[in-house]
Amino acid sequence: MTTAEAFQRARRPEQKQQRQAAILGAARELALRDGVRNVSLADIAARIGIHKSALLRYFETREQIFLELTAAAWRDWARALHAGLDAAAPGSAAVVADVFARSFGDRPLFCDLLAHTPLNLERNVSPEAVRRYKLTSLGVVDEAAALVQRTLSTLTLAEAREFVATLASLAGSLWQIANPAPALAELYVSDPALAQACVDLTPRLRRTAEILLAGLIPSRNQGQGDQGQSSCRVQADPVRR
Amino acid sequence: MTTAEAFQRARRPEQKQQRQAAILGAARELALRDGVRNVSLADIAARIGIHKSALLRYFETREQIFLELTAAAWRDWARALHAGLDAAAPGSAAVVADVFARSFGDRPLFCDLLAHTPLNLERNVSPEAVRRYKLTSLGVVDEAAALVQRTLSTLTLAEAREFVATLASLAGSLWQIANPAPALAELYVSDPALAQACVDLTPRLRRTAEILLAGLIPSRNQGQGDQGQSSCRVQADPVRR
Repeated sequence: MTTAEAFQRARRPEQKQQRQAAILGAARELALRDGVRNVSLADIAARIGIHKSALLRYFETREQIFLELTAAAWRDWARALHAGLDAAAPGSAAVVADVFARSFGDRPLFCDLLAHTPLNLERNVSPEAVRRYKLTSLGVVDEAAALVQRTLSTLTLAEAREFVATLASLAGSLWQIANPAPALAELYVSDPALAQACVDLTPRLRRTAEILLAGLIPSRNQGQGDQGQSSCRVQADPVRR
Repeated sequence: MTTAEAFQRARRPEQKQQRQAAILGAARELALRDGVRNVSLADIAARIGIHKSALLRYFETREQIFLELTAAAWRDWARALHAGLDAAAPGSAAVVADVFARSFGDRPLFCDLLAHTPLNLERNVSPEAVRRYKLTSLGVVDEAAALVQRTLSTLTLAEAREFVATLASLAGSLWQIANPAPALAELYVSDPALAQACVDLTPRLRRTAEILLAGLIPSRNQGQGDQGQSSCRVQADPVRR
């Protein structure tokens, strides 16, 4: 069902679903190979052998295709956390840090997408598409926070959510640094003064996770004066923490 | 010196510098107003009243212009840290967290640029331009780490550098989340289920800085098995921590 002819013939709902799946599959393969930034709508269309106008019958924009992949990647990531933590002995911050670090380190496309989401993907789709995406990502962050709190019961759920959200943001930006463009990678190798600019993603995330988990409780009750200061464009919900 | 005629006449080194400064100034104004992602080479050229081919006599690419602005923003940021920490009483993590959070929160263009740097800016410039940029940013991170360590002398310099680098990465990605596209901002206001997706940049960075500073020492000596695992494309330097 991934040929141009099959695309032209499809009529029924299950055929449309197959087409959507084929488009998402092609986008995923290309993004894994070339990086999200380098994959255009025309590339995805060419991969399936159709014209890009045909793609736009199934997705609003290039960005919506990648936003759908990001939502799927969040759900896949949640399954990895369950696999790593459902049977974990309670109380071990080291296990939580390791499971989280590997859950990102093993998922290069998820990390790449995480950096592109607020920067690009959420900005060129309909409000309904971004709303659906946000409900997925927020739901998974809550699910992950509940898993953390079940293992580390001295944390509050809000603290566990802070840990999850911070590490996910970092995974996106650190992955970009850990995967430099070829010219930059060569520079790192040839110039010892620049070597420290490169990052080993999984060990770095593990170390940061350990630091965050060790610091959440001792830093409680600091910064009480924060509530009134909002730099967000949207009026802050005073009880959302 | 920002008119088309002035650009056409310039010959001497100081005139070239004036032109470069005018280009950087125009790029800075537009990026502050519209966001880095929305400013093209043609926009910058139009702002100064010249053709974009004239711009390319002074800078390699659009990305090099923004990389130069990022380097300048790092240096400006270092001055803000000195202003906040040079006279700080030793030992106060709360002061360090507050100075760092405000140093980012007060510099929206710096935060915006930080997210674009590994994702876009470092990927479309010459090796020499990216090398020059990296030496600036690494130098400022080291300078900031030394300031942190002078105030919090129980930290090692490597730990202080970890704090600085982590917070700078987060500032870039959190700024993007804290400054959503207009359609997304409306959605946050209209849909209570999405309100928690928004971020207040300065308070969030302050809180994360407090957590990191509280966790660095207690988490020492964890994760000893990390050294052998590298996901970076460049061979890790075993002593670079």
